[in-house]
This record gives sequence, structure tokens and C-alpha cells, in this order.
Amino acid sequence: MDQQINITFPDGAVRQYASGITALDIAKSISEGLARKILAADVAGEVWDLTRPITKDTTVKFLSWDDAGGKSTFWHSSAHLMAEAIESLFPGVKFWVGPPVDNGFYYDVDLGGRSISEDDLRKLETKMAELAKQNNPYIRKPMPKAEAVNYFTEKGDEYKLDLLQGLTDGEITFYTQGAFTDLCRGPHIPHTGFIKAVKLTNIAGAYWKGDEKNKQLTRIYGVTFPTQKQLDEYLQLLEEAKKRDHRKLGKELSIYTMDDDVGQGLIMWLPNGTVIIEELEKLAKETESEGGYKRVVTPHIAKESMYLTSGHLPYYADSMYPPMEMEGEKYYLKSMNCPHHHKIFAAEPKSYRDLPYRIAEYGTVYRYEQSGELFGLMRVRCLHMNDAHIYCTKEQFFDEFRAVNEMYQKYFKIFGIEKYVMRLSLHSPEKLGIKYVNEPELWKETEAMVRNVLIESNIPYVEVQDEAAFYGPKIDVQIYSVIGREFTLATNQVDFSQGRSFKLEYTSQDNQAETPLIIHRAPLGTHERFIGFLLEHYAGKFPTWLAPQQVKILPISDKFMDYAKEVLKKLKKADIRVEIDDRNEKIGKKIRDTELLKVPYMLVIGEKEMNEGKVAIRRQGKGDLGAKLVDEFVAEIVEEVKERKGE
Amino acid sequence: MDQQINITFPDGAVRQYASGITALDIAKSISEGLARKILAADVAGEVWDLTRPITKDTTVKFLSWDDAGGKSTFWHSSAHLMAEAIESLFPGVKFWVGPPVDNGFYYDVDLGGRSISEDDLRKLETKMAELAKQNNPYIRKPMPKAEAVNYFTEKGDEYKLDLLQGLTDGEITFYTQGAFTDLCRGPHIPHTGFIKAVKLTNIAGAYWKGDEKNKQLTRIYGVTFPTQKQLDEYLQLLEEAKKRDHRKLGKELSIYTMDDDVGQGLIMWLPNGTVIIEELEKLAKETESEGGYKRVVTPHIAKESMYLTSGHLPYYADSMYPPMEMEGEKYYLKSMNCPHHHKIFAAEPKSYRDLPYRIAEYGTVYRYEQSGELFGLMRVRCLHMNDAHIYCTKEQFFDEFRAVNEMYQKYFKIFGIEKYVMRLSLHSPEKLGIKYVNEPELWKETEAMVRNVLIESNIPYVEVQDEAAFYGPKIDVQIYSVIGREFTLATNQVDFSQGRSFKLEYTSQDNQAETPLIIHRAPLGTHERFIGFLLEHYAGKFPTWLAPQQVKILPISDKFMDYAKEVLKKLKKADIRVEIDDRNEKIGKKIRDTELLKVPYMLVIGEKEMNEGKVAIRRQGKGDLGAKLVDEFVAEIVEEVKERKGE
Repeated sequence: MDQQINITFPDGAVRQYASGITALDIAKSISEGLARKILAADVAGEVWDLTRPITKDTTVKFLSWDDAGGKSTFWHSSAHLMAEAIESLFPGVKFWVGPPVDNGFYYDVDLGGRSISEDDLRKLETKMAELAKQNNPYIRKPMPKAEAVNYFTEKGDEYKLDLLQGLTDGEITFYTQGAFTDLCRGPHIPHTGFIKAVKLTNIAGAYWKGDEKNKQLTRIYGVTFPTQKQLDEYLQLLEEAKKRDHRKLGKELSIYTMDDDVGQGLIMWLPNGTVIIEELEKLAKETESEGGYKRVVTPHIAKESMYLTSGHLPYYADSMYPPMEMEGEKYYLKSMNCPHHHKIFAAEPKSYRDLPYRIAEYGTVYRYEQSGELFGLMRVRCLHMNDAHIYCTKEQFFDEFRAVNEMYQKYFKIFGIEKYVMRLSLHSPEKLGIKYVNEPELWKETEAMVRNVLIESNIPYVEVQDEAAFYGPKIDVQIYSVIGREFTLATNQVDFSQGRSFKLEYTSQDNQAETPLIIHRAPLGTHERFIGFLLEHYAGKFPTWLAPQQVKILPISDKFMDYAKEVLKKLKKADIRVEIDDRNEKIGKKIRDTELLKVPYMLVIGEKEMNEGKVAIRRQGKGDLGAKLVDEFVAEIVEEVKERKGE
Repeated sequence: MDQQINITFPDGAVRQYASGITALDIAKSISEGLARKILAADVAGEVWDLTRPITKDTTVKFLSWDDAGGKSTFWHSSAHLMAEAIESLFPGVKFWVGPPVDNGFYYDVDLGGRSISEDDLRKLETKMAELAKQNNPYIRKPMPKAEAVNYFTEKGDEYKLDLLQGLTDGEITFYTQGAFTDLCRGPHIPHTGFIKAVKLTNIAGAYWKGDEKNKQLTRIYGVTFPTQKQLDEYLQLLEEAKKRDHRKLGKELSIYTMDDDVGQGLIMWLPNGTVIIEELEKLAKETESEGGYKRVVTPHIAKESMYLTSGHLPYYADSMYPPMEMEGEKYYLKSMNCPHHHKIFAAEPKSYRDLPYRIAEYGTVYRYEQSGELFGLMRVRCLHMNDAHIYCTKEQFFDEFRAVNEMYQKYFKIFGIEKYVMRLSLHSPEKLGIKYVNEPELWKETEAMVRNVLIESNIPYVEVQDEAAFYGPKIDVQIYSVIGREFTLATNQVDFSQGRSFKLEYTSQDNQAETPLIIHRAPLGTHERFIGFLLEHYAGKFPTWLAPQQVKILPISDKFMDYAKEVLKKLKKADIRVEIDDRNEKIGKKIRDTELLKVPYMLVIGEKEMNEGKVAIRRQGKGDLGAKLVDEFVAEIVEEVKERKGE
């Protein structure tokens, strides 16, 4: 009689199967539909081929396209399919490695001196589709290492031999589909028939093992999908992402610039970008003023002693600019605003009556990022941070922390950010005294406080272990742009440690010296990252309140310039950002040029409008809205700006 | 017959006198009254004793107390008088140097181990008054250096011997009045009788020759006047100056703080100071927006290459923080905003249609000042500058430069600055190519342009040679605070050089590449210096629009808290900075405490006010203004703030 094993499913159910059964057969035993949908299985925490025999009690979770493990298996198998196609079109090539990546897969190939063209990519795509249709199974074959070495020695494949060298002795695995066999740890999907849509996206050079002293291989990137529809959508998103790329839009809309003499990663904000900065700061200041914050201004440098107290030195030294030595002292560019704010708290004696003491500053901090890691507005070296610190008693903590979370949500609503995740980052008890302040009780207490705020405010969140700040638990907010880019926007942190390091004190109601709790928060993140996000989020079509230029007046000819100026004056008086296009151009061209600049409103002015005291309104993206009396339009746009309407 | 010489007077008149005549006798020949009033004479550009014989044709200008040269001679002679008094009270002391300074004089004395008390100062004052009354003449005696060396060797005076060493061989001079003789270049007043009022103000330690390895001498400061009335006024001003000292007020009103861990000269602005900063920036932004400026934001650092192009390196290196070296590059904290702004101009192609291109930024710059020179808000290392640069054509220059001067005057009016001087600083033709860009024609042209603006705008100004910027002529604006402190507030500079260094270009109407002229301007100077000035100017009693806290509501008891909160809400809604004094204190104490904080308005609230929907208004410095309906008060204060009224 066959030996029976117990399989435990994610919902806790346990079923018995004959030992040697595969995950695919288990799925079939549940439903044929399920079996058709799945790509791989999570067996005891490891991703396995669906067709690999299971011989002991374990947990099984089926992985489909919607699971990271399913998708990466799909793309890994696609890399093998591409290799098969390459080998068939270019016999004699040799392969290095072919992993799945974030958005597809690649394979590094030694083409033996051949070069490969865009045209070749199209041919490969066709070949891959043809091979996929053969529904060739991916067959796993364990093999002693010695045998594998013989195999590749005979074949004369120095690349795979090199890979084998790195593996421990004993059994390794091969995978074969159709005519292609590869040394491979797996796992793979059941057969090539799952791959219904193929796009090879890019060719690049890649030094063998990433070492520029080695030979350059050809890296071919591709992406595949279970349906043609998914590929179509993906290509459309790519197209959209290209159009929305904040670096492209940043240039087209004159938002920011960089210069080699200033330094990479050091953004210079052009007038248009500065308008957005000032609108964001205005919003923050209004919101914070309502929230009882006061504002401060601190310098951008401080002495070494301050960062030794804060603990940034030596631990954070790698992320800071090197020091300036002067009069026997080392000065550092600040990488955070907190220490300066602590000094402001400490500048004058505080009592419980002064708490909560909330101080805010759009502080500019400097962080050293490797030049290779810099990326547009997303990874920079100078950041304008929507920073504030709240010094409060334990009793005040709940309300204060909740108010910060509510501030986030208010902002999300204004900017139409619907997709976001709050991550509650906790400490790891094993790392107390190493990565985290050694205060087990305070950790428990503050983590519970933060969790309570989230629960009582009904905010969806995920908990992650071992990602807290050095000085306390925190909430990070991750948002997603329309084109799928993920941003860690904002942070809300508890700090029960720096108050002590800086010897911050307040006099309690019963006249005792107490250390305040500190909340670090930055709901709008940094100007750099947030404006980068907004550019992609709005595709450069900013809502009127944020738009660098809100209205463009387009007189049909010089004859209407006086009237245009009259309209301009009224709009300026109402603090609307407006200009006249006074070029000697046809109205069609004026409209087209203004469309490119994504100005929300165009006011076309001709004979009729002048005579009736009106303006003919064109709304960016919506076209003609008809004519209105000037005063009526002014009142409407003022209202739109005041309300910070979303479009 | 005596030889005759020609004396030319400032008005151009020439008179003949016998050779050997003194300036005093010349004055007497004109009028006895004049002779009684004058203290020294300017002879061919050098200040002389009135009693020194004149033996050749020359120019003579009489110097009285109202002339800098007259005053400094008076104080120099007073230093000798003090030395005579010291020698008489403390025989055996030795003297180093005793020069006149800005507000009086001092003498560095080796008291031979004695110490000196406030009491001793009073005794010295009495002695000086007594000696002054003797009308002892200051007698000049030329002497060969060798003889002087003998004299002081015999006396055992190592200090004066040291001084003699530094002098070239040949004739030196001694001065004697009464019992005191000193090695001295002079000049001096005719006799001690001119000194009618004496005040010794301070005792300090001073290392010999300023070197801390040397012996410490005692520096005694004093001030003297031709009349007792002048001394009384001066002492009153000193008293007022102490009260108005921005460092004292800055602390009392919680405006700013400094901290040793941050670094000296690095101002941290407390919430109250930040309110003032934000009001000033709001004013600047409004004014600049009306003036057609756009705003930009630039980082605080840049690479060495930028400052080599601008010429700040190596010439200005001593005034900059040392570099930060990173990835093989040197980064500097910016000490000026101009290079960054030039890069913004250059970031996108410009045509004549884009000019004048005006970009403004409250840019923070860092300058290295020796720690000994730091002084409150007046000499600091981090400056927030009301900076802007205007790029224009030659044809646009006149209007642009005039508009900047008009902006100054607008500001002066708002802040009630009545006493100011515009200094037109010109180049010196001999220093072309050394201190000034070697462009003689451009210098002539731009200096004429600037002078024309001043003349046509009817602005009073003085011209000074050899004080221009490296790159062009400039106007500095000097203002004076109520307590007589002089501030170089603002600057308005022409620059015909940096445009070329940075290869800035615009396409002219006839399609040629042209270099723009640049105007550098900063009408409100820096926050640091300007707020320092305003603190002293207003004695901390800021006009309502600038006051950190504008209104304090003082309920007579808790019974009126609800009504107080209602009033608070109305004021907050109108954007008025208001708080309630909710302490359990008597109304008298509440009023006294609020007076100390110099809050413009106090609203006292009791039974009567509550029942009538009113507030009882107390205006800071003016007392009770009677009761008004809340809405009426709100409307009035909103108007006062909006109009930025002066008190």
C-alpha cells in the first residue's frame, strides 16, 4: 500500500495524499479550473515545480500569476524559452545566466562575435511563440555534479562550467524543454503553453560577472504574459510611463534643472517648479497652523558634537557629506532636522503648559547618495523635507499621533491618492542594544500605542518586524503612482530615546523634570520626491491651484491687446498666475503651444468677446467650454484655487 | 621780509600768510569765534595740530567736533589726558598705545601687577577734569630717533622702545601736556581746556600686541566731550542702546537662539523670530511679484569648478567655509547666490523676449567670519539673503536699476526708516586688471548709467572712489538705527563681467548672441541683520503686522473663558496671531506680563464686555483704548495688518 502524507493548506485544512503526489495533481483533486490557473507551488516556504513529487508531510500553497512567486517562475521559464529560440536561430551561442527580474526576465548570452538587431528580436519573438505553442513540458532532472561537469566539458561551455564550480558537490539539477537543456535550480511552470504573449524589450551589453575586465556579453530583456490582453495593457502602461516620466516632464514643463558645476543630485528649481514648491509649502503651513504647529528656521550645518549626541555619528556617517574643518572644529551638513529642533526645544525652559510643543520647518537636508544611485527627483542629494517634531507627554501621545495620521489622509484626499499602504515597523527583540535602543518595556509600550492609533482610527495597515527606527516604532506610508511606481512618501515615528540623549526636559504639573516623547513626522515627504510623484501622478497636468501657470490669454490679433491686458489685470488682482501670448502667431498655433505647456485655462479673445466683456474658455484636456463674462470666470477660478480642487 | 605762502580754503579762496603761520592763527585772522571752535586742521589732506607752523603753499580746512578728523583728534588728546591722570594716581605704570576709536578712546596700560576698580575709574575721571581745567597746551616736539631711544632706555620703558623699533630712522615726535610726555605721531588739540566732560566707560584685558602669548595689559576705555550736555545725551543714548540691544531683546522676546553644539554665528530662529521672517518674506514676495520677478530655489552647495568660474575661488576663499571632498570632487557651501542663479538663467535658451529675466530667492549663504568677530545677529556665519538677479539688455538697464531703487524707498517707508545714505561706489582707474575687471569703457559707461538713475530719480547720494565690486559699480545703502548704529543694509550692483564668465547669452532681436547685463540686488539685506536692526529700531515693539503675537486675550476669570474662546476663534479666522492667557492669575499680573512681551493688543474680557459682545482694548505703549464690538475690532486690526501700518 502507498504511504500517505498530510498536506496542510493556507486555510489550515489538512488532506491526505499518496506520497509522491505532485502539487499539480493535488490541485486537480480540488478542481480542474484551479489546476489550469496555477503556475507553481509554495511547498514549505519554497517555490517548487508543480510537477515535482512531494514525499512528506508539508504545507502547500498554489501560486498563480497574481503571486510574486508565480510570476517570477513564469518569467524564469520564459527566459529558458527565449534561450531555446536563440539557440535555434543562432546555433553555437553560449549562455551565462537568465533570471526573472522586476518586470520580466533577461538572459546574458555570448553570441560568439555576432551582433543582434531589433529585427532579430522580432524573429526571436516569433520563434518563441511557435515553440510555446508546442506545449513542451519543463522536465526537471537531478544529476550528480561530476556528471554535469562532464556534460559541459564535452560541450566546451566555459560559462556553465564556471557556474558549476560555484555549486557545492552533490546533486544539481538540469531542466529541459523542447530542444533546450540548461543547468538550473528551477522551479519552472509545467509547460511552455502557458506563455501566450511575448515581447523582447531591450538589448544591452553586460560584462561577464559584472566585471568590466571580463568579456562583454549580450543581455537580452523580455517580458511575457499568460494572455495577449495583458501584454497589450503592459505595453500601453510602458508608453504611458514614458510619457509621464518625471524627468521628461520636468524638462518639458521647465520644473527643474541640474548642472555639472553645481553637482549631480542637487536640484535647482526653475520658476515653474518653485511655484509648485511654494503652493505645497502654503498648504503645509496652513494645515500645520490649524494643527497648532509653530514654525522655526534652522541652519544647514552643525558641529560634530551634535551628531555624536544624536547618534548620527558614527552610525550614519556614510550617508552624510564629509565634514568641513574650521577653527579646530568639524562642521557637518545636516542630514536630518531633528537635532536642530531638539536644540530649539531646549533653548528655553518648558513646562507641561508648553506641551504638546509642535515645531515645523521645510528643512533642507543633505544626504550622500552614490552618484550611480541618483535618479531624477527620486534619489537626490539635497532634500527639502516637510519636517516637524512634536514633543509631548505620554498622555498626549495618542491624540497627537492620530492627528498626524489624519493629516496624511487629508493630504491624500487633496491629491487624489487612492492607493496607499501604511506599514507599521516594529523592532526585533533579538536586536535590542544593537540595532534598537535597549529598552524592551518602552518598545512594547510605544508599539502598542501606535497600533492602537491605527486600529482606533480604522486605518488599514501591515505590520513588519525589524524595520523600526533606532529610537522607536514608526509608520511609513507607501503610495503608488498611476504608472505603478512605488514611493515611500511619508513617515510618522515615535522616539523615546533622543529626548534623553539631548537631555530634553519639561516640568510636570507636580514639578518634576520629565523627558518628553517625540514624534517625527513628514506627511508630504520631500519636495523632490513628492513633486516627482505629482508629475507622474498628474502626467504634468497639474490641478489649477498647483499649476505654475494657471491661465494664458490668447488674443486673436494685436487689435485685442488692450482688452487682453484688462482681463490680465483683473486676474492678477485676484492672484491668478496669468500671462498673455502676445506673439504675432495664428490662434491655432497659440492654442497648440499652450496645450503643450499644460496650462489649465486658455482664454481666447476676439471681436465678439471684447464687445461682450467676455472670454472664450478652453480647459486643458477638455477643449472649448464656451464664453463667460470675465468677472464670472475670475470668481470661478478663484474658488477652484481656494478649494484646491482636484482637476 | 617774511616769506609769503598761499593758503587755499575749501571754497577755493586763496589767502597769503607769512610762512610759519599756524592754522590757529589763520583761523583767528578770519574770526575769533572760529578759532575757539576748531580742534585741528586738514593740511593738504593730513590732519595737523592747529599750532604746527605751515611753511609752504597748501590747502587748509578747519576741523571741528562735527568733523571725523576733529573728533578723533579730540579723543586722541583725551587718551593722553587719561594717561596723565593714570600716571599721577598710579606712579610707575607703563603705557603701550592709546588711540581714538569709534566712540571715544582707550589706552593699554601695564599697571605693574596692580588691578583697577570701577572706583578707580571715578577717581581718574575727577583727576582728568582737574587736569583739563589747567588748559595745558599739547606741545609737539620733533626729536631724532636715537635720542628717543636713549630717553626710553633710561626710563626702562620696554613698550615705547618696542614702538620705536617699528619706526623708520630719522625724526620722530613727542607730545607733552602738563606732566605727561608720550611718543606720539599726533595730532592733538591746542590745549586740555577743550575737554569739558569725561566718562571712563570700561576696563578690559588686552594681550600686548593682540597676541595671547604676551603679557596681558589693562585696556581702559573712555569718552569725552566739549560740553557736559553732549556727555549727558551720550549716556542717555547708551542707556537706550542697552535697552534696545537686539541681543537682549532677542532673548527677552524669544526671537532667536544659538547653541555651542550647532556652532557660533549660526542662528536658530525660534517660533517668534520665524513669524517675523515669514512676514518679511511675504512682503518681499508680494513686492517682487508685482515687480515681475519669478522665484527660484537653489541648493546650498556647489562644486569647486563653479566658484573658479565665478572668481570666488581663490580670491574669496578666506570668507568661505572649507570644502567637503567627495568622490574626488570638492563641494563648497555657497557664500553667494549669484552663480546658482546664473546657472538657472543658462538652463534654458533665452531670447530678447525673455528679458528682463528677474529671479529672486531668499537664499541662505554661509560665510566664514572669525569667531572673535561674530556679534549677535549683526555678524553671523549663516545669512538668509533677500537676493535677486536681473538679467537685462543695456537698453533696459536704466528702468530696471531705477525700479530697484524705488523698491528700496518703498521698504524704507514701510519700516519708517528716515535716515539713510546711498553710496555710489566707483572703480579706481589705476586698479583696472587688479581689483577691477579691466574694461575701462564699460566702467565709464555703467558708472554713468548708475549716476544717471540716481540723478533722475532725485535720490541724494555720495560718490566714493575705489569701492566698487570687482565686476561693476554699485550702490550701498546705509541706514542708521535710533541708537545710532550704522548698517549697510542693502546693495544694488551692476555686473558686466559675470555674464561673460558664465557664458550667459540671449538671442537678440536681430538674431545675434548677446551677453546680458546683470543687476545684483538685496533691498532687505539679510534676515539676520535686518531683524537685528528692526529689534533696535522698534525697541522690540513691532508694528502689528510684524509682531510675533498680535493679540492676547485676558479673561478676568475662568468664568469668561467661553466668551474668550469665541473672540479667539473670530480673530484666528481672520488670520490674526492670538492667544488666551488662561492662567489663574489676577488681571493686573496678566497685563504686566503681556506688556513685557510687547504684544500690540490686549483684550480684557469681563462681565460687561461679555454681555455687550465687546472687548476692552489696551494698546501696547498707549494703554486703555476703551471697549469695542468684537467684529469692529477684528475689522480694524485686519486693516492695520493688511496696510502694514507703522504702529
